[in-house]
Amino acid sequence: MIALTFVSKSQLAQVVIPVFIDDRLHDYVMKAKTYDLVPNSIHSKFDVDTSEFTDGNIEQQLSSDKNAAIVTYCYRGRRAQFAANRLKAMGYTDVVNGKNVAYIMSSLCQDDNVLIRQLYEKESSTYSYIVMDKASREAVLIDPVVETVERDMEVLNGLNAKLLYVLNTHVHADHVTGSGKLKQILNSRNDDSNIVKVQSVISKASGAEADIFVSNGDTVNFGEQVLTVKNTPGHTPGCVTYLLNNNSHAFCGDTVLIGGCGRTDFQGGDPNTLYDSVMNNIFSLPDETILYPGHDYKGRTCTTVGEEKLNNERLTKSKEEFFDLMVKRFDGSSYPKKIDSSLPANMKCGVYEL
Amino acid sequence: MIALTFVSKSQLAQVVIPVFIDDRLHDYVMKAKTYDLVPNSIHSKFDVDTSEFTDGNIEQQLSSDKNAAIVTYCYRGRRAQFAANRLKAMGYTDVVNGKNVAYIMSSLCQDDNVLIRQLYEKESSTYSYIVMDKASREAVLIDPVVETVERDMEVLNGLNAKLLYVLNTHVHADHVTGSGKLKQILNSRNDDSNIVKVQSVISKASGAEADIFVSNGDTVNFGEQVLTVKNTPGHTPGCVTYLLNNNSHAFCGDTVLIGGCGRTDFQGGDPNTLYDSVMNNIFSLPDETILYPGHDYKGRTCTTVGEEKLNNERLTKSKEEFFDLMVKRFDGSSYPKKIDSSLPANMKCGVYEL
Repeated sequence: MIALTFVSKSQLAQVVIPVFIDDRLHDYVMKAKTYDLVPNSIHSKFDVDTSEFTDGNIEQQLSSDKNAAIVTYCYRGRRAQFAANRLKAMGYTDVVNGKNVAYIMSSLCQDDNVLIRQLYEKESSTYSYIVMDKASREAVLIDPVVETVERDMEVLNGLNAKLLYVLNTHVHADHVTGSGKLKQILNSRNDDSNIVKVQSVISKASGAEADIFVSNGDTVNFGEQVLTVKNTPGHTPGCVTYLLNNNSHAFCGDTVLIGGCGRTDFQGGDPNTLYDSVMNNIFSLPDETILYPGHDYKGRTCTTVGEEKLNNERLTKSKEEFFDLMVKRFDGSSYPKKIDSSLPANMKCGVYEL
Repeated sequence: MIALTFVSKSQLAQVVIPVFIDDRLHDYVMKAKTYDLVPNSIHSKFDVDTSEFTDGNIEQQLSSDKNAAIVTYCYRGRRAQFAANRLKAMGYTDVVNGKNVAYIMSSLCQDDNVLIRQLYEKESSTYSYIVMDKASREAVLIDPVVETVERDMEVLNGLNAKLLYVLNTHVHADHVTGSGKLKQILNSRNDDSNIVKVQSVISKASGAEADIFVSNGDTVNFGEQVLTVKNTPGHTPGCVTYLLNNNSHAFCGDTVLIGGCGRTDFQGGDPNTLYDSVMNNIFSLPDETILYPGHDYKGRTCTTVGEEKLNNERLTKSKEEFFDLMVKRFDGSSYPKKIDSSLPANMKCGVYEL
C-alpha cells in the first residue's frame, strides 16, 4: 500500500493506477476535466446502488496483475469508497480510497516547486500574494489592491509568471480589489485567442461578480499546485480560505489576523459564525501551517496555526467571551474610510468591466 | 563516499567519523568549541610541514575498519585537505575533505527545521528578520529597528524563541538599530547567570561596537542552523551578507535591494566595490537563493538571485555603466533624513550601553 502523501503526480501515475469514478464533468474544478488532473487516470462510471462498474470494461483497463496498486477517487469521496470495496471484492489486493479530487490533488503536491511572494500595500496595510508553480510558471494572485496593480504586474513579469487566476478571499471593505484592472490590462494586451485569459475567482456566497465562483472543497489548479477552497464565513458571509497543497500554507483573508481577526459588525458579519469557521476550518489545521493574513497593521508578515491557538487575543477565548468582546469592540460605527466606495466597486471586481 | 549535502548533523555522526584538524579554539565560531559543532568529532593536531598527525593516537581513535567513511575539516579547509591525503596514505579508503567549518556546518543543515519571520518598519521601510531553529527555539534577529523593538519581542515571545544574537548587516544611516535596546531589556530581566545573555554581532570592518565581531567565513550558530558571513562591502566598507545553511536564503542588507542596490556616496561607500561584492558573492549563489533585503519602498518582500540577475535595473549593467550610473544618481547630497542621529547611535548598537 503506498502512502498518498508526498509523491508527485508523475510518480503517482508510475506506481499506481488512478481510477476516477463518475464521469460528470463539473465546473467546480475550474473547467478542467476532473479525471485528467491525475495523469493516466482510468475513468469509469459506478452505480452505488448495485455496487457495479457500469462501463463494463473496467477489468480490461486495469492491470492484469491483481497486486498492482490502485487508487480510486471521485468528486466527494463517497463513490470512490464503494468502488474501492468492489475492486477488492473482484480480487484486487492493493486498493486505496484516494477520497475526493481536492484531497488526492493536495496529497500529491509538495511545496518544493512552489514560489510564494508576499506583497504589501501601505495605505490599507493589505497583503497580496503571488503563488506560482515554478516548473510551468503558472500563477495565481490573491487579494490584489487596485493601487498596486502595476507593481504586481512588474513582479509577475520579473518572475516570468503566467497569471491564470486572480482570487479574492472576500469582498473587501477597506480597499478596492485589483482584479478587474489586472484583467483589463492583461486580457486586452493581445487578441490572440490562444493566449489564456486571466479569470477572476470569488466565492459564490459573496454575491459578487466574477468569472468563476467557488465554494467549499473546490480546487484552483495551476501547474502542479493546488489551492483548496474552505468556506470560512463570519467576517463576511462569503469569506473563504485558500489552502495550499498539503495544508502547508493558508491564505485566510481577514478570518484570522495575526493576534486578532476581522471585524464582524457590517457586511453580514457574525461573531459566532466567524468563531466556528476558525475552530472548525483553521485551528483544526496542523500547528505548523503558515497563515498568510489579509492585513497586518504592525508590520508582521505571517503567523502559524500553533502561534494563534496560543497567543491570539480574541480567538483563544470561549465562544461566549468572543461574542461579547466582538460586540463591545465593534459597535457598527467607525466604518473603514473607503467602505462607501470599496463595497460597490468590489462587488464588480473593482468597478472595471469584466 | 557520502555526499555532504542534505544530511543532518546526527546522521553525519552516525555514518562517518568527523575529524576536526587543529585545536586552536577561535573566537570566530561564536566561542563554541569549533570541533564540537559536529557531534562525536575526533580532534587532532596536524603538522602541514611534515604531513603528520602530531597527537600520535589518531589511529587508535579512528575505526579499525579502514573502509569507514571519514570527513576531515578545519577552520579554513587547507589543513583538512593535507590531513585527508595523509589518512588515505595510511590506508583509509573513504576519506573526504569536509573543507572548513562554515562549509561543513552549512552542508549539514536543511531548512525543514528553520522558521524565518520577516518584519516591517513603515517609516524607514526597513525589514528585520527573526530566524529560529524550530527544535531548540534558539533564534537570531537581523537588523532590528529601535522603534519596533517591542513588536519584535512580542513576536519572539509568541514563538517561544530564545534570542541568542542580534545581528546587523551594517551600520545603518536611515534608522537606529534596535540591538542595544533589545539587549538592555532582555539582559536586565533576570540576573540569573544561567540565562544566556543576548549578544550583538556586527562585522569587524564596520568599526562599530558590539559583543562579537565577524568577518568572511565566520559562522553564527543557533540550534542546528548556521548563518555564514560573507563580506559584501560597497554600500559601506563593513557590509556583510548572512547566508543560511545551504545558501537557501541570503540576508543581504542594502547590498542588493529588489531591482536596485544601496547608495554608495557616503559612509565610505564605493560603487566598484559594491559591484564586485555582488558579482563575486551574491550573483554567484544559486538562482533559487532567496534574497531578503534590508529595505523595499514598494511593498515587495523578497527576491531571488535569478530574478535580480535578469531584472535588476543597476546590477545587470557592466561595471563601468554601473559606476557612471551610481555617481550620477547619488551625488552626495540629499542624505537620509535620520543620518545625523542614526550614524553615531548605530556605532554603539543604537546609543544604548552594551
